[in-house]
Order: sequence, then C-alpha cells, then structure tokens
Amino acid sequence: MYLTYAILVRNLTFGIEIIEKDTLVMQRSISKVLVANRGVPAVRIMHTCRDRKIPTTAVYSTPDRLAYHVRMADTAIHIGEAPPIESYLNADKIIEAAIQSNSNAIHPGWGFLAENADFAQKVIDAGLIWIGPKPEVIRLMGDKIRAKEIAKQSNVPTVPGIENVTSAEQIIEWMQKERVAFPIMIKAAAGGGGKGMVKIDSTDQIAAGLAQARSEAKKSFKDDTVLVEKYIEHGRHIEVQIVADEYQHVVHLYDRECTLQRRNQKIIEEAPSTLESDLRQEICVTAARLMRRIGYTSAGTVEFIFEPSTQSFYFLEVNTRLQVEHGITELITGLDIVSIMLDVAEGKPLPIKQFDVVANRSALEVRLNAEDPKTFYPSFGTITHLRAPLGPNVRVIQGAAEGEEIPPYYDSLFMLLMASGTDRADALRVLDRAISGDLRLEGIKTLAPLLLSLIRHPKFIAGDFSTKFIEEHMQELVSGFRERTGEDEMLRVARYVAEISALGPQGWM
Amino acid sequence: MYLTYAILVRNLTFGIEIIEKDTLVMQRSISKVLVANRGVPAVRIMHTCRDRKIPTTAVYSTPDRLAYHVRMADTAIHIGEAPPIESYLNADKIIEAAIQSNSNAIHPGWGFLAENADFAQKVIDAGLIWIGPKPEVIRLMGDKIRAKEIAKQSNVPTVPGIENVTSAEQIIEWMQKERVAFPIMIKAAAGGGGKGMVKIDSTDQIAAGLAQARSEAKKSFKDDTVLVEKYIEHGRHIEVQIVADEYQHVVHLYDRECTLQRRNQKIIEEAPSTLESDLRQEICVTAARLMRRIGYTSAGTVEFIFEPSTQSFYFLEVNTRLQVEHGITELITGLDIVSIMLDVAEGKPLPIKQFDVVANRSALEVRLNAEDPKTFYPSFGTITHLRAPLGPNVRVIQGAAEGEEIPPYYDSLFMLLMASGTDRADALRVLDRAISGDLRLEGIKTLAPLLLSLIRHPKFIAGDFSTKFIEEHMQELVSGFRERTGEDEMLRVARYVAEISALGPQGWM
Repeated sequence: MYLTYAILVRNLTFGIEIIEKDTLVMQRSISKVLVANRGVPAVRIMHTCRDRKIPTTAVYSTPDRLAYHVRMADTAIHIGEAPPIESYLNADKIIEAAIQSNSNAIHPGWGFLAENADFAQKVIDAGLIWIGPKPEVIRLMGDKIRAKEIAKQSNVPTVPGIENVTSAEQIIEWMQKERVAFPIMIKAAAGGGGKGMVKIDSTDQIAAGLAQARSEAKKSFKDDTVLVEKYIEHGRHIEVQIVADEYQHVVHLYDRECTLQRRNQKIIEEAPSTLESDLRQEICVTAARLMRRIGYTSAGTVEFIFEPSTQSFYFLEVNTRLQVEHGITELITGLDIVSIMLDVAEGKPLPIKQFDVVANRSALEVRLNAEDPKTFYPSFGTITHLRAPLGPNVRVIQGAAEGEEIPPYYDSLFMLLMASGTDRADALRVLDRAISGDLRLEGIKTLAPLLLSLIRHPKFIAGDFSTKFIEEHMQELVSGFRERTGEDEMLRVARYVAEISALGPQGWM
Repeated sequence: MYLTYAILVRNLTFGIEIIEKDTLVMQRSISKVLVANRGVPAVRIMHTCRDRKIPTTAVYSTPDRLAYHVRMADTAIHIGEAPPIESYLNADKIIEAAIQSNSNAIHPGWGFLAENADFAQKVIDAGLIWIGPKPEVIRLMGDKIRAKEIAKQSNVPTVPGIENVTSAEQIIEWMQKERVAFPIMIKAAAGGGGKGMVKIDSTDQIAAGLAQARSEAKKSFKDDTVLVEKYIEHGRHIEVQIVADEYQHVVHLYDRECTLQRRNQKIIEEAPSTLESDLRQEICVTAARLMRRIGYTSAGTVEFIFEPSTQSFYFLEVNTRLQVEHGITELITGLDIVSIMLDVAEGKPLPIKQFDVVANRSALEVRLNAEDPKTFYPSFGTITHLRAPLGPNVRVIQGAAEGEEIPPYYDSLFMLLMASGTDRADALRVLDRAISGDLRLEGIKTLAPLLLSLIRHPKFIAGDFSTKFIEEHMQELVSGFRERTGEDEMLRVARYVAEISALGPQGWM
C-alpha cells in the first residue's frame, strides 16, 4: 500500500549535512524484520514484531546457535564466529542475511551497529528499510563537538567551557565573564582516559593546575593543547525520550533518570526523574526543540547532566537509537516505542500527539547483568534454573532462557527487570518484591544482591544520590548483601524438610 | 495508629439484616496476613502484601507442603490432609493457624471459604481483621432470591419472571402485561440440574410445556410448583468491579466481559466489555447503585446477563469476593484491587474517587487450566519445564512453579495469562504472542491450544459470541489446534540440529 503525504520541510541551515527532502513521501510496508542483534534487545524487538504479526529473522554467531533470540525468530541465519567483528558487527553479512531471508527491513537494537551511520546507509542502499534515524543524523550526532555546537545554536544549555587555554588569566577572565563557579576541570584537548585532567577548586590552584595538565597532555598525547570546562559535582543523569516522524512531528515521552551508574554504565533507571515538575517540563521541551531542529526521526534520547546545587541542566549528547531503558517510559505512558519506530520506518505519521501522552505513573528498571556483584567481573556459565519474577506491575525482558549458556564474548546484560506503581515509593516496593521474592537464578552470578542493596539504601529511597553513588558507597552496599537471592525461600524449604523428618508435617515458622 | 472518621450512615430499611454502625470507626493496622488459600489466589495476594511490606502466613495441606504459595510466604502452617474439608475448608484450623503465627488478618482469596459468611464472622469473633465484605452482606447476597428482591427494590433490572404458575392463561397474561417476548423458560421452583426445565418458543407450546415441566418437577422434586422466566438467548456475561469503603464511598472500576465460558466456568475474560459506551456507563452506574444500597464494603462484583437482541441487561448476582479476573481491571486502571481491600480492611477510606479512575486501555485474560484441551479432563503431574511468557504488556500470575506437582485435589487453574494494549485488537495480538510465542510448559496438559484457537477465531476477534460459543464451536476449535504450544520453536531447533550435523552452521530457515 502506498500513501502520499504532502509535507513542508523547513529549511534548516546549520551549514551541515542536513538533508532537504522533496515534499512527497511514499509509505513503505515492512513485511519481515531482520534484527541485527542478540540477547535482550533482539528479544525485545521480536516481541513487538510478533504483536504486529510481522515475521522476524534472527542472525547469530556460532556460540549463539540455540540462543533465545534465535528460538524466538521465524528465520535464523548464521553470520559468523563468536568475535563481534565477524558476526554482529559484520555489516555485509547481515545485509546479505536480510536479502537471503526475504526480510525487507533491519532493526539494529542497541549496541553493535545501532549508531553506525555507515551501516544505516548501507542498509538503505541495499534497498532495505532502516528502522532508525536517518544516517546523516546519526553521523552528525556522533560527532560530539558538532552536536554541542548545534545544541548551542538551538538555545540548549551546554556545559560552559573555553578552548585553547594557555594562561591562568584567560581562565579567570572566562569564569568572570561566564559567571562560572568552581570547581572547574582542565582537560587535554586530544585527551581521554583521565589523562591530562586536573580538577581546580580555587583561584590559587589555577596556575599550577594548568601547568600540570599541559605537561601531562604533552607527555600522553604529544600535544599540550588544553580546554577548560565547568565541573559538575554530584551531577545527575537526566534524559528525555523522543519519538519523531518524517513530517516534523516531534513528541517527547517525558524524562528518565539514570544517575545510578558504575563507570558510566547505567545500573538502575527510573521514569520520571525525581526533579521538580517545572524543571522536568523545561528539560523535556528543550530536548524536543533540539530534535526538531536537527530533523530527527524515529526514537532517540537527549541526555543531560543536571547540577543540583544550581538546579541547572546541560546537554551531554543525543543517543540516536533505542535505549536499554526505553521500557520504563513505555510502562508510564502505555506506549510501545518499538512499534512507533516501525510506524515511522514505514513512513507513517506518529500515532500520538504531545498532549495525548499521559504519564502519571512511576517505573524503575534494574539491569540484571551476569556479573559478580562485588567485583563486576563477568560471570559466564549455564543458567541451570531460572524463575522470572511475575505478578502485578512487573515487566521482564529476558535475553537468555533456562538451560542457556551465557557466552563470554558479549554484553553481560541478560535480563531487564522493571516495576511500576502509582508513585516512586510504590514502584520501588514492587521492584524489591520482584528481586527478593520471586526471582530465582542458578548457575551464574548476577548483580541482584547489589541491586537489592541499592534500592534499599535510605539515600536512594530519598532520591539523594549522584552518578558517584555506587563508587562512594560500595563497601556499605556490599555489607548489605544477602548471600543469594531467594535465600529466605531456600532456608524455609530446608527448615521444613528438617522439621518434617523430625516432627511430621506439623508446620514450620 | 488509630484514626477516627466521622461518618453518616443512611438508614437502609429492607427489613433485612443490614447493620447500622455507630459514627466513629477505629482504624486498624494489619501487621501480618494469613492467606486462607493456595495456588494462584494465594500467590496473587502475597504479591501485594510483599509490595506493602506486610508479612504473610501460608496454610497448606500435606500434598502442598512445597507448593509455590508456601515458598512465597514468611510463615507456613500445616492445616490438614489433602481433602479440602480437612484443610482449606477447615475454618477452625485456619483461625488457629492465624493466632499461632501472629497474623492479625485473614484474606480468603477466591474459592474455598471466600463467600462463607460463617467463616467471616468467626474470623471477626476471634478478634482478627477480615479482609472482605461484611459477613451480613455475604450472607444476604448468598441468598439469591433475596438478592434479586433487593435488586428490584433498587431499580436494578432483573430477568422478568412469574412464580407459582398453574395455567397457560396465567403465562400469556404475564407476557402481555410485562411485554415479554419468546422464548421463555418454565422451571421447577425446587429445581436444579436442568430437571423440570422446558423452553417455550411460541404460544401454542405453552400448555404442553407447562404440563411437562410440572410432571417432571413432581417426579424429580416431589413438588410441581413451577416458575416462568424470560429466556435470554445468546446472552453475554457482563460484570462490574466495585470497590467500597466503610464511609459509603462506592466506586466502580468499569466493566468486564466474561462471556466465553464452558459449563459456567469462565475461560477468557476481557476489560472493558465490547458493549457500546452509553450502555457500559449505565451498567456500571447501576452496579454501583446496588452496592451502595446494600452497604457493600471491600471489593466485589455485580454480574449481569446482557441480551444483544434487545440491548437489555439483567442482574444475575453479586460476588462478594475478589474474582479471578480482577487483574484485567487492574491492567486498564493501573490500580491494585488487593491493596484497596487491605486499605478498606484497615478502616481507611478508598484511595480513589470515581472520577480519578481512568481506564482507556484494553486487557484480556485466559485461564491456563491444567486440563486436556479436548476433553477438559484435569491433567495432573509434575511441571517439568516452565517458561512463562514475558515482555511488554504481559502479566502472569503463577500458582505453581517449575518442578512442582499439580495435585488432583484442587482447582485446575495454575496460571493466569493477561495481556493489555491500547485497544482490544492490540491486546489480543499481545495475548497471542504470550501463548504462542514465549510460553513453554512440559509435564502437564493445559488449555493453551484451545485458548489460542479461541482467540484466533474470526467471530471472537469480531466480538460476535455468546456464553454458548465454546459448546457450539468445539469441533471447529479443536480442528484448529496445533499439536502443542512452542511447536514452531521445537521444529526450528530440531531442524537446526539436523542441518548443522549435515552442513555445518550455515543457517536454517
């Protein structure tokens, strides 16, 4: 079926590679989706395809031959050996698999090729439907410096900074002019990995700090160019879910907070954030404005860092893909974001308008990574027993099933646990029940004890935490571990067995 | 904590045992809940108790010693042998178990003692909190003739009828006066089990039919008294969920349709019903009016039969308990009905007002009974493998876990599968995915093939069905069975194993 929409594309002139399309767009029909991923994202996308009665194709590497995502698909194509570069990152093999399996669309999930503009372009060039934002937009937002420039031009606050710094006076002048307060951070322009980074807390530290940063930069990168940025202490990670179509409809699905991280890996996410309502509104509208300016389509997220002391938020980056934590937004809005991505990819307008989006509940998600909860070392092995938490207000996305082996080659995420409630406290209690009550897992270690310890921490319950929370409280969190999830249940069963053999079935407490 | 509420109790005079309480009510605090049930209802209630951090006590019969509800509870008390009369129907043992375990409240679930007024009174007399409607109201609504009288007095439509019929003229006169159309049903007043029941389709059948009914009644019950009622052909079962507190707040949570039944056992339920909106509104308001008149408290349901040909609805009965299908109402309203029951039992006012209840989604539930899907014979045995359906918009209440045995003594319901969506078609597709895609069950037979066949039937999809649908279409439904749920998945795995041994891991379709 082909439909035509008459659309008006505003002229967006950033001097950058923003496309300007003709005013007639064909509606395309997705007949079969190849999911270029594995585990949780692959299974999640297949759920929606099944709901829409669209057949799916799984791709798999040799160790994944009997993986859950393979078993869920209608067709499965082997694309290579275990190393991602030979399989899940092998663009040509994946496109070949799509053609071979009569799939006419590709969803990249998250991770692997999800934010790879070249791959997106290759998919389109092969005559297939790309379920994601336009390659030009992926490329543009992938360039973090350009992205920040565009944000500035769109009146989106960015972290104040100054480039090519050579003297202390330059820094002081900039701080006065831009009203930047300490602390600030001096960074090697060519930097990364913390090298050439010096934090400055007062005026008298500037000169020495600058010298140190330049010297370290020279040593590490053979380039002593440095830049200075305001340093956000006790920052919180706030992000806004956006969906947009080809007809310039951009709708935000409210905010999420993903402040609980470990080494920039999100561990717990919640929707909405615990920020005050006016502020949330401002952040959401700002995010939608930016996405409208860059001609965004499909689902994407605008990430911000929030500074509690000044109640300011600053643009970080745009994630041009579906995010792991999209499910909590689905729980509070009742929408299916993957389904909206399919609609947009088919050339349809968004099925919702901004004021249709009601989000009056609260939801949290934890990432049940297969990792040692004390050391975060990956835990490989076979899932010998798995009982997923069920019941009211719990949502689980399972990337691997009982009997399956967690291979050592990929992401350690194998299950997402979400809980919703009428408010945050309510959702937290449901999440606690899901982890401590119903979940049973044997054969691999998971973050479950850490997650439980985290969501029971008074500061987390009070909403008083920053991105450094896990590092700062790790000892305390570990001391709160119970040996294993399901401990109480196993103790009760053991005690019952002991008592029944001594006393007969008289009861046990 | 004790709070007092000043309330005004209207004088309700039916000449019946309706209580009139003083105007000061103490708020009670529930410290531990004994759940006087097993399987699905017990687990469901424990979920909410856990969410509210209220400890629970399970009671169990000997074969249930390691049952899921026992493992979920904080305390478990053995109350007797397998036959329900010795355990789950043993009121004294259950109350003793509550006292022994320091439980100060009892929730009866559904089935067993849930609508037993004597048990409710015993619980209260033992100084415990009864989580359910008042014993007087349970007793009153348990008397179906009194219940119908009260409905009439409350302007709630009841099925037109006439008692003590002795002549054909009497019937014709009544039909003219009350404008009743054929068919009608002549029934033995002392009757039951279909004996002495004769359906009449035209005036010329009345005399012979009356003689036949009276003769059969005399033979079967030694009493030839008969009554006549309008016969509802192709009726649909519509019910309204009510919650109410001690302060005369009565709120309806909209309607459900439970038309798909087999021998009066509901198989598939949905919320809301597919009736037209004005009619739904009228039914909901009528139900709330009746419950307000009888001074109802806690959760309950008013059941109606709906006649499509005349677009009329008639009162059937009030279920004075939590119902199996309450979960779909929770899915469309976002409320937790068990939690509201706990609030009301603690003497708190309802946490919601009528106009706070938003229900703009659609949800369906299927009962995954352990029964042969062709014969409906119970299927006992051990659940050797269980993979519950997960993912977006699916809710599962599991009454037994993997490794557990389904004992032959009780209800065959061991799992509820629910699906929600933006509309009925959407929810149906999610339900299909849950049953056909993710669910895996080995060791026992279940209704899954029948359920799948039902929800894929064009008439069910179109909303064109009556309570007789399953009986009328059983052959057709059975012919639509696939041999087992998960068939495609197993076929795919088998084919993969065959191909890989012949060709190496090149792919399989």
